[in-house]
Amino acid sequence: MELNFAPPAEVSELAHLVSDFIRTKVVPYEKDARWTSHGPTDELRVELNELARQAGVFAPHAPKEYGGRAIGQVARAFVFEAAGYSMLGPAAIHCAAPDEGNIHLLAHVARPDQREHFLKPLAEGRQRSCFLMTEPGGGAGSDPGMLQTTARLDGNEWVINGRKWLITGADGAGFAIIMAKNEGGAHDGHATLFLADLPDPAIRIERALDTIDSSFTGGHAEIEIKDLRLPSDAVLGEVGKGFRYAQVRLAPARLSHCMRWLGSAVRAQEIATGYARSRKAFGKTLGEHEGVSFMLADNHMDIHQARLSILHTAWLLDKGERASTESSMSKVVCSEAIARVADRSMQILGGLGMTRDTVVERIFRDTRAFRIYDGPSEVHRWALGARIVSGKL
Amino acid sequence: MELNFAPPAEVSELAHLVSDFIRTKVVPYEKDARWTSHGPTDELRVELNELARQAGVFAPHAPKEYGGRAIGQVARAFVFEAAGYSMLGPAAIHCAAPDEGNIHLLAHVARPDQREHFLKPLAEGRQRSCFLMTEPGGGAGSDPGMLQTTARLDGNEWVINGRKWLITGADGAGFAIIMAKNEGGAHDGHATLFLADLPDPAIRIERALDTIDSSFTGGHAEIEIKDLRLPSDAVLGEVGKGFRYAQVRLAPARLSHCMRWLGSAVRAQEIATGYARSRKAFGKTLGEHEGVSFMLADNHMDIHQARLSILHTAWLLDKGERASTESSMSKVVCSEAIARVADRSMQILGGLGMTRDTVVERIFRDTRAFRIYDGPSEVHRWALGARIVSGKL
Amino acid sequence: MELNFAPPAEVSELAHLVSDFIRTKVVPYEKDARWTSHGPTDELRVELNELARQAGVFAPHAPKEYGGRAIGQVARAFVFEAAGYSMLGPAAIHCAAPDEGNIHLLAHVARPDQREHFLKPLAEGRQRSCFLMTEPGGGAGSDPGMLQTTARLDGNEWVINGRKWLITGADGAGFAIIMAKNEGGAHDGHATLFLADLPDPAIRIERALDTIDSSFTGGHAEIEIKDLRLPSDAVLGEVGKGFRYAQVRLAPARLSHCMRWLGSAVRAQEIATGYARSRKAFGKTLGEHEGVSFMLADNHMDIHQARLSILHTAWLLDKGERASTESSMSKVVCSEAIARVADRSMQILGGLGMTRDTVVERIFRDTRAFRIYDGPSEVHRWALGARIVSGKL
Amino acid sequence: MELNFAPPAEVSELAHLVSDFIRTKVVPYEKDARWTSHGPTDELRVELNELARQAGVFAPHAPKEYGGRAIGQVARAFVFEAAGYSMLGPAAIHCAAPDEGNIHLLAHVARPDQREHFLKPLAEGRQRSCFLMTEPGGGAGSDPGMLQTTARLDGNEWVINGRKWLITGADGAGFAIIMAKNEGGAHDGHATLFLADLPDPAIRIERALDTIDSSFTGGHAEIEIKDLRLPSDAVLGEVGKGFRYAQVRLAPARLSHCMRWLGSAVRAQEIATGYARSRKAFGKTLGEHEGVSFMLADNHMDIHQARLSILHTAWLLDKGERASTESSMSKVVCSEAIARVADRSMQILGGLGMTRDTVVERIFRDTRAFRIYDGPSEVHRWALGARIVSGKL
Repeated sequence: MELNFAPPAEVSELAHLVSDFIRTKVVPYEKDARWTSHGPTDELRVELNELARQAGVFAPHAPKEYGGRAIGQVARAFVFEAAGYSMLGPAAIHCAAPDEGNIHLLAHVARPDQREHFLKPLAEGRQRSCFLMTEPGGGAGSDPGMLQTTARLDGNEWVINGRKWLITGADGAGFAIIMAKNEGGAHDGHATLFLADLPDPAIRIERALDTIDSSFTGGHAEIEIKDLRLPSDAVLGEVGKGFRYAQVRLAPARLSHCMRWLGSAVRAQEIATGYARSRKAFGKTLGEHEGVSFMLADNHMDIHQARLSILHTAWLLDKGERASTESSMSKVVCSEAIARVADRSMQILGGLGMTRDTVVERIFRDTRAFRIYDGPSEVHRWALGARIVSGKL
Repeated sequence: MELNFAPPAEVSELAHLVSDFIRTKVVPYEKDARWTSHGPTDELRVELNELARQAGVFAPHAPKEYGGRAIGQVARAFVFEAAGYSMLGPAAIHCAAPDEGNIHLLAHVARPDQREHFLKPLAEGRQRSCFLMTEPGGGAGSDPGMLQTTARLDGNEWVINGRKWLITGADGAGFAIIMAKNEGGAHDGHATLFLADLPDPAIRIERALDTIDSSFTGGHAEIEIKDLRLPSDAVLGEVGKGFRYAQVRLAPARLSHCMRWLGSAVRAQEIATGYARSRKAFGKTLGEHEGVSFMLADNHMDIHQARLSILHTAWLLDKGERASTESSMSKVVCSEAIARVADRSMQILGGLGMTRDTVVERIFRDTRAFRIYDGPSEVHRWALGARIVSGKL
Repeated sequence: MELNFAPPAEVSELAHLVSDFIRTKVVPYEKDARWTSHGPTDELRVELNELARQAGVFAPHAPKEYGGRAIGQVARAFVFEAAGYSMLGPAAIHCAAPDEGNIHLLAHVARPDQREHFLKPLAEGRQRSCFLMTEPGGGAGSDPGMLQTTARLDGNEWVINGRKWLITGADGAGFAIIMAKNEGGAHDGHATLFLADLPDPAIRIERALDTIDSSFTGGHAEIEIKDLRLPSDAVLGEVGKGFRYAQVRLAPARLSHCMRWLGSAVRAQEIATGYARSRKAFGKTLGEHEGVSFMLADNHMDIHQARLSILHTAWLLDKGERASTESSMSKVVCSEAIARVADRSMQILGGLGMTRDTVVERIFRDTRAFRIYDGPSEVHRWALGARIVSGKL
Repeated sequence: MELNFAPPAEVSELAHLVSDFIRTKVVPYEKDARWTSHGPTDELRVELNELARQAGVFAPHAPKEYGGRAIGQVARAFVFEAAGYSMLGPAAIHCAAPDEGNIHLLAHVARPDQREHFLKPLAEGRQRSCFLMTEPGGGAGSDPGMLQTTARLDGNEWVINGRKWLITGADGAGFAIIMAKNEGGAHDGHATLFLADLPDPAIRIERALDTIDSSFTGGHAEIEIKDLRLPSDAVLGEVGKGFRYAQVRLAPARLSHCMRWLGSAVRAQEIATGYARSRKAFGKTLGEHEGVSFMLADNHMDIHQARLSILHTAWLLDKGERASTESSMSKVVCSEAIARVADRSMQILGGLGMTRDTVVERIFRDTRAFRIYDGPSEVHRWALGARIVSGKL
């Protein structure tokens, strides 16, 4: 079989469909006041979801049994990039984090009854979800080993206590996947995942965090879990295998971040290019100044290289490989390339770039956060370097 | 005379006084709700100004006749950096843009009656001011030659029409300095500066711009000037010399930007260092990871080099030189170094860095804008390169 | 057809064969004194060619009629990278510049008699060739439009005059392809390619240039062409189409540069990694210092991304596309990534890296030159930027 | 005392004198065949030294008792930069490494008899010297603690054994300063410095290393010390204080590297600027292309910032401070800035830049090595980062 970089026709068609939808239906909503500093409201999201359903582009990655097309990673690369052209696009077609990753995780690990209760309404877009891993105050972050939230069996019930933060989409979510460390029992000290319906008085959203980014429905919350009691079968997968499942979720989840934000880089470049063509300074258009056209050229190369990186990793994942090194590299390469594109685009726009009159300002802020999400670049470089030095790579 | 990099004792003392004031009195206000996304409110500013007066650190750069100390550029370098440690600091001691630059301009160019009417209350902090140069829609920006706002004499009155935007501090200002292009007359096509009291129904603030930065009192506005009528003596300086005066204002104004934001870089580094000392990951503190300590080292070098650049330009200005090349270089060197410091500091803070729980998030956004303010880096590189190629440098 | 990044089995096999050959047979020659500062001598090259023939890896890109395998661009990507592992490798398997590009050009454009006389011995490795385009003193370079060498018809003969320099492989070449500008005639001012046997007293090699790189057989020469007389049928292709043919040659030629030097980046990384594993400083191995392991990680990512870029462009070329934008991007991306890899590898080696005790020192120097060869990065950014701004991209 | 960045008149005058000398007398020697790949020959050096004496610019940093002017660090900053304009300049006025550092060390530590025997002829330029610290094969390098060369007392004599490499100027030197680790005795395990006349059959220069740089007289050697016997008073300073003296030497020695190579950056910029003014491509001069003029602007800023860094550290040293943090920062800032200048200058020169037709090619190679000399950037970042994290900075 020969090398091939071109997607199958049905993938191209779907991507074009999504692209048309985003440009004609979603972009006009970008000035909607319901896009707040804590992301689009659920009201706005539901309205966009309905448009996506009408356009036949809703949740193409969802399992077929729930109305999706169960498209693979390579197809997602094209489709999610198209969706990311608007930062409201992923919420609109329901491929945003953390739902997209949670669908993936549940589809792989959940029991039939859990699929029916949690996955089905999530995949169908009738509710949102959240993933409670990160902790404040020196707890779990890039190093999940520092997990402080605890779960202990009390008779037939799990009792969970801890604090979580930077929990994307918690406000308004229908359920939570909670990571906690077993206290006592056969799996003492190991991590386990739990499923819990929301709202629950034992899971208190203390505050919405003010963050640099603003595109996730529900924003990011700080949460106190106090004596949360869950039935013994609330465990997702097996007890003590929480870290393993987090890994199952992680590689594709960080890759789909790359896909979506690549779309926003394409958008930023389009806006910057349009401006460079029309705005004049010192006797010619900005685009006729090499100082500007070189930035556009670098943007083009960064976008191209990021896309190649994504496609390669997606191809490995579709072949069934873990691709943890490659998804890690893609995360670094893409988050840094995309951030450079956003930065250069803002710079080309000059004073206009500082304002929210174009979406570049939001793209810049969101993509800055992307260099921290799912492991800052430094954690990936550290892991990658260690693999090289130890001869594993 | 030997080389010397150490400030005179009285400058050190003043800088320490300011530093103490900022750390003890101003920093506690950083969580105040009156610090909005359009900057601190005037109410907050007035409260801080009063504290500054009590501490003896109010407006040390103001002319002595108005209660200031008339400190020079080198002294400002030390004092304004100390003020910039909190992004509320410059507003607190009244050395923020655009007032600081306007005081400088008026002190150099205004007639005695204009000094009394405009400069005195400004220097004493009883009112704020704004500088109306930048225009939307292809008008004046980095290239002031594209000025579209017009001024024509109609009998004894000037009639001014045009649009302005990105006008910092307009909302709440007591007067405006307006740049317009003469239409007709001996100076047809040349730029002139005008002084106008605010509010004035002919100077309509159409909207507050949503911008990436958030530390200027009054935010940034878009303004329509419609048939503004000013008396013939409303001209600041001479008719037709607007660009020349803008230059008088510009070199020190962009240098004082460097000074203030250098203080914010120092702050970001302090916060990042503190976090690196305490936060653990993978078995040791972040600071014990070279991936982090190298960033702290780079921050330290960037701060040091930015400071040297400022001091050198300030020294030239104090000697009476125009130093336009050096202030231009300082603007590029400092804005880029400071932005790197802010970026690395945010990266070191990880998830915390994305949130407004520390001021680094605001510092990051403000210093991003600094790379665009007062001429984007590209305009300075272009001008500098042209001077080199033409043999002027 | 699905996406695919894996080469066909026969390509993998050939690449492995070449890789084994390079590591076992060619690497030992890297200390041979016949590798001079002007490249390997012809004696050394001939000796290596013979070993390559014995190993069955000689000139796999040559047309089948001349004993080659006529492998396409994707196959070359794998094979040439394997050859580039030693900087003597391309000369050894006869895929070095300029011969590789000249074979490609002649195979596409030459008449049957020209193929027999020039291409056959070249493809079979019985002689070398050179391409006389670049000129000193303000003539043709990145801008071929500045061509100063002239060709005019004098009866049945072309008379060519001019100066060329940076002519790789001229010393010892069996023939030259000469680009000259028509003077008079129907194609006045247009460029034409000519074929000329070497040596010829009218083509005088004035000097071997001392250059930063040292891996091309025959080095780089400065040449005077004085009243060179060639028969009217010495034209390669059609009169006046010189620039077009240069383009035919250029896209694949610059891509094969990327392939070969990518191999040298792999080599540098291997050497640096080995050193980082064993060399100790400050109580642990260099590789245990993140300051070093991060550099290895960046090298790994740069190599990976360069390879993806090459494969993508090669795939387009194999599909019959011109891919001039993509080959241009690959040239920038690869030359800069590879230079970074070489630079970091040298830095990791410390004092050892400064010496010729490892080949990294030569790799560093050669790959520095690569950022200039075949159009400096700036020319590519300029062209790419112009295409974006004009809407062609 | 006010800040001041301008040198005293006598320093300016001396710097101008040196500058004139370099431009008129030394530059013409840059094409001399006696400038080999292992640096200028001693014959060439002696010829240049004589010219320097005639011009009154020989060794101004030497102690006054030996004919020098004993100029301080700030004065050196101006004078050595002027000397560095030609890479033969430091050898010409005798301020090159390692002699300049050795003069400094001996002037501070040597006994009167040692001054007479070693320092006097060195300071007067009648002989050269070398400093034997760095070791091959895992010995002393950036981490001097890994010192393997041993010194043990055998009766009245020291017996020294070990291997050294990268020993600059060893070939042709009149004496060596040797660092060795005490074996036995009161200072067992501590380092001591020894003075030894050269040549000595027990100090065998095994080979001249082929290195990327080429400006040090005598090149860099690998040396075997086998049963070298020295009288007990051959110790420089006190037994066991070798590391401390190395530090005395190091801070100013690395700063003078910055000074000299800053001169070479100025030279590279001058050559690149001249080329950019005259060479045309695509219808205008290179300098009219922003892609080039921006590089010239960045060079200008890098040179300016490097100079400020040097002056600041020099000022501290002249005040009697150790300035180890500042000299370390200057080393990183300057070596990286200067390397960027050399790199950009080469890039601007295009094909010409690759050749030795201008000195930029040599400057590029030498300044690449500078990023490794006297501690690679990474060692300085590591030390600086550790000081920040531990609160010492």
